Amino acid sequence: MTTLGLVPAKQGKAVFLRKGETIEIINTHGNQVLDTWAYNAHDVTEHMSMEHTRSVNSTIYANAGDLFSSNRRRPMLRFRKDTSPGKHDTLLCACNKELYTELGCKEYHRNCEDNLREALKEFYLTPPSTPSPFNLFMNVITGVDGEILRSPPAAKAGDSVELVAEMDVLMVFSSCPQDIKPVNGPACTPSDMHYRVLPPGTPT
Amino acid sequence: MTTLGLVPAKQGKAVFLRKGETIEIINTHGNQVLDTWAYNAHDVTEHMSMEHTRSVNSTIYANAGDLFSSNRRRPMLRFRKDTSPGKHDTLLCACNKELYTELGCKEYHRNCEDNLREALKEFYLTPPSTPSPFNLFMNVITGVDGEILRSPPAAKAGDSVELVAEMDVLMVFSSCPQDIKPVNGPACTPSDMHYRVLPPGTPT
Repeated sequence: MTTLGLVPAKQGKAVFLRKGETIEIINTHGNQVLDTWAYNAHDVTEHMSMEHTRSVNSTIYANAGDLFSSNRRRPMLRFRKDTSPGKHDTLLCACNKELYTELGCKEYHRNCEDNLREALKEFYLTPPSTPSPFNLFMNVITGVDGEILRSPPAAKAGDSVELVAEMDVLMVFSSCPQDIKPVNGPACTPSDMHYRVLPPGTPT
Repeated sequence: MTTLGLVPAKQGKAVFLRKGETIEIINTHGNQVLDTWAYNAHDVTEHMSMEHTRSVNSTIYANAGDLFSSNRRRPMLRFRKDTSPGKHDTLLCACNKELYTELGCKEYHRNCEDNLREALKEFYLTPPSTPSPFNLFMNVITGVDGEILRSPPAAKAGDSVELVAEMDVLMVFSSCPQDIKPVNGPACTPSDMHYRVLPPGTPT
């Protein structure tokens, strides 16, 4: 059994994956949203793109079996397993400091956009922009008129997903610090998340 | 009457708008999709963001009356008038050279992503990445299971939209060069588009 890695509540974490490795992401306490990005580890101008992924897969949702495309339309990640109720979001932005100002915060509030920057700093990288994130466990559906309906995550403690690296990738996670709206559950209490890197060939 | 500007078929064009000015965009021959971006004219790290706009407006569609937000969650454009059937897309990527390779092109094919770069070059600017575009007149709806359904544009010759600048903006348009799929109508023939800049206070 490989060691568990931690994405601390409200913080970011970058993880390098070699092609063929799988990352298992565990919603340790349930209810938590994890904003997720992936970069080509050898050229960070190539990154996972929600708009290209939607174009390739012709759906606004992300389900086990799907491939995630880069902005150069190459497969970056394969979504191979999902023990959660399968509610994840491809439509919404990462939260940023301006969003918290909008919500009434007078002082700095931790946010997913800055978590991305902090996490990449460990690798001496500065992203020129914030790609649209894949929001794991974020329970967003659209209504018949295209309205975006947000519900608290449906993921229970211990639910997990598995993503396989289709190239060498630098993944970045942010355990979303949202504690004003019930994005991370009705308790509005962001929590730790865990992950495990599985070697190539690990069965699902 | 102000002069008509041209966005040539398959090409890009950048247009500077002062706060309060309106740009009227005319689907001259009907059927044509126009990929659209907007940058803060004084700081191009701030740009119109589809993911923030969806977050603010809580819809995947864009309708007359809506505001478009920047990646710093400030209003950039106001969608004040639409004489077309109102089908526009916020979900899909700009086409790029890799997309045309995927469609079987052996040689370079003009594309909206490179049109963005070319258009900004006139202003001595190089975008570090391609923001997700607002695809004017692109007829994309989602089905009940979130599937993305593409139809040829519903816009007829002469249909137009009006966008008001809520700050000084540099707008970029690309008359989409897609001539393999019927994105720009069943004839697969991209066409010229026109625009007119209207001074502040021009009635709708």
